Amino acid sequence: MSSRTSGQVHIIGSGLLGTSIGLGLTNLGVDVSLEDSSPAVLSLAKDFGAGRTLNAADEVALVIVCVPPDVAAETISSAIKRFPQAVVTDVASVKSSILSEVTASGAELSHYVGSHPMAGREKGGALSGRPDLFVGRPWVITVEKNTSAQSVNVVEQLALDLGATPIRMTAQEHDHAVALISHAPQVISSLLAARLSGADDSDLALAGQGVRDTTRIAASDPKLWLQILSANATELLPVLRDFETDLSSVIHSLEQVDSAGSLAKLGKALEAGNLGISRLPGKHGSRNTSYASIVVMIDDKPGELARLLNEIGSAGLNIEDLKLDHATGAQVGLVELSVLPAIEAKLLETLSSNGWRLAG
Amino acid sequence: MSSRTSGQVHIIGSGLLGTSIGLGLTNLGVDVSLEDSSPAVLSLAKDFGAGRTLNAADEVALVIVCVPPDVAAETISSAIKRFPQAVVTDVASVKSSILSEVTASGAELSHYVGSHPMAGREKGGALSGRPDLFVGRPWVITVEKNTSAQSVNVVEQLALDLGATPIRMTAQEHDHAVALISHAPQVISSLLAARLSGADDSDLALAGQGVRDTTRIAASDPKLWLQILSANATELLPVLRDFETDLSSVIHSLEQVDSAGSLAKLGKALEAGNLGISRLPGKHGSRNTSYASIVVMIDDKPGELARLLNEIGSAGLNIEDLKLDHATGAQVGLVELSVLPAIEAKLLETLSSNGWRLAG
Repeated sequence: MSSRTSGQVHIIGSGLLGTSIGLGLTNLGVDVSLEDSSPAVLSLAKDFGAGRTLNAADEVALVIVCVPPDVAAETISSAIKRFPQAVVTDVASVKSSILSEVTASGAELSHYVGSHPMAGREKGGALSGRPDLFVGRPWVITVEKNTSAQSVNVVEQLALDLGATPIRMTAQEHDHAVALISHAPQVISSLLAARLSGADDSDLALAGQGVRDTTRIAASDPKLWLQILSANATELLPVLRDFETDLSSVIHSLEQVDSAGSLAKLGKALEAGNLGISRLPGKHGSRNTSYASIVVMIDDKPGELARLLNEIGSAGLNIEDLKLDHATGAQVGLVELSVLPAIEAKLLETLSSNGWRLAG
Repeated sequence: MSSRTSGQVHIIGSGLLGTSIGLGLTNLGVDVSLEDSSPAVLSLAKDFGAGRTLNAADEVALVIVCVPPDVAAETISSAIKRFPQAVVTDVASVKSSILSEVTASGAELSHYVGSHPMAGREKGGALSGRPDLFVGRPWVITVEKNTSAQSVNVVEQLALDLGATPIRMTAQEHDHAVALISHAPQVISSLLAARLSGADDSDLALAGQGVRDTTRIAASDPKLWLQILSANATELLPVLRDFETDLSSVIHSLEQVDSAGSLAKLGKALEAGNLGISRLPGKHGSRNTSYASIVVMIDDKPGELARLLNEIGSAGLNIEDLKLDHATGAQVGLVELSVLPAIEAKLLETLSSNGWRLAG
């Protein structure tokens, strides 16, 4: 595979994102150099194959700043001064506050383009890095009135090299969007999970998939999120205040369930949730597609799931989504297969004739 | 397979739960009769194989009331009078308010035992019924001071017949637990999803797995949940009020991120979420076990997942959990495999030597 990106790429900060970018570009044959404020972290990322040490004689074409949000602006400003010939970008999860700080520092902005790959993992660090971290993910590239088209193009080629889908927005549009679809869910999930911290084991024993899904991202790194949330407070606050207003109205309705109109209000809140979730785009970038869902029961032993999927594959049928659900305390698993409605009948027939245990 | 349950079982209400119980018991050879206030729904459930019509001469040993929560109490009271020789149970998601109403109706309580199988699906109705709905799920059986041990035993045998794990609690203990691990997550998820209803498509295009997981259960039936939430308002309110207090504190911190102590408060809220999620029990009923997680990239075409799992099965390795993650806009899939740490190295070796594309 040959890369779109040309020239040497220098990555500042070799945590999860820096290491993943380094691995992805190195795999494509790009010459990648790395630096990190921690010699131990830098050495780990180099051992991992994410790049080499920067040399004094290097001619860097693109600098990617991959440091935590609280030091991103000063690192970008300094990179602009250190590498005056290079395009400089960064990957921080907040964009407006960083742009303001970089502008205020007096750094030359003509070669700077902020960006944000919408990828990550609950675990950070170089060791969690992987070259395919960005595959199929949106990569926001922030374009302001005076941003150089040439520089935007360089960052778009980078995103495409790593398998991501570049999306152009202003920094403010980006921050508005992520407040809604990333930062507010993080706060709400953390606050919900916090309710469990003092619970009795006997209460928690009844936990099912609902509470697990709603609280999963509460396992994320508090230090990183503290920086993200505080840097995007302006956009996040209106979303949280609207949530607070609705919650307060639900609490009020529950306090007087017998008074006129209370149930109607509560019902409307639940219906608004139905509407909201229906607006999330579905797989492959399209609007929510309705898949047919088929549940198969399998024994919890090696090879069972493979045998099931092997038979489905042999019949030429493609699965859109798969969820393996190990039931609490049971040694059996439930496999929920989502398929396009057009092939549902054929799949049911295939499974039945092969003796699988199905719903109803 | 022979059943623990003996004698005829009569199911009142043939929606998702009634039909699923009927299918499960019929599969075990139990004689099941059905009734439903809707002749069309009844006829559907019978066609589905969930049971037969009740006859005047029938001698019913166990009645299971599977109607919506708002009509559960009156249906239970009437069933106690109609079937004086039978044990009567119900499957409603709230227990204290129903027990109070049944007690107030003057019905004889010695043969009544409330219960709640912790199982369900986002889609309701007889057509969604499946005999394995309860496999491996907790089935709460409410035992009060005067509940007959003989009747409790009958309902426990029913739960075991359907593959569930019986758990004894009082009605109040049940309602306290489900407020925390089911009802509060439902309210919070709905209110979070409601934020998306007025959003721009371009904002929603950035949605990732976090917002999807936190809002998934917001797709549930508002009519059913309206009944559940209002019937359990007493236990639910303290959980929501605590959430509201914490949210208001987070909002306050974000309003003044630069003042002393604000960031510390915000950080504490996020750490409380870390702690809460760590308390959720893991798979197979045990405390959260740490699994090793390995991510494999596969092409989005028939048979690829099967080929992967086939090779893992052939190596005698068992997967604890599997998540198939189709990336937005991409024709590739990422498969996240969770395995016991002890077999991680062997799995990595197997996958690498078979040429699969792995992390880092």
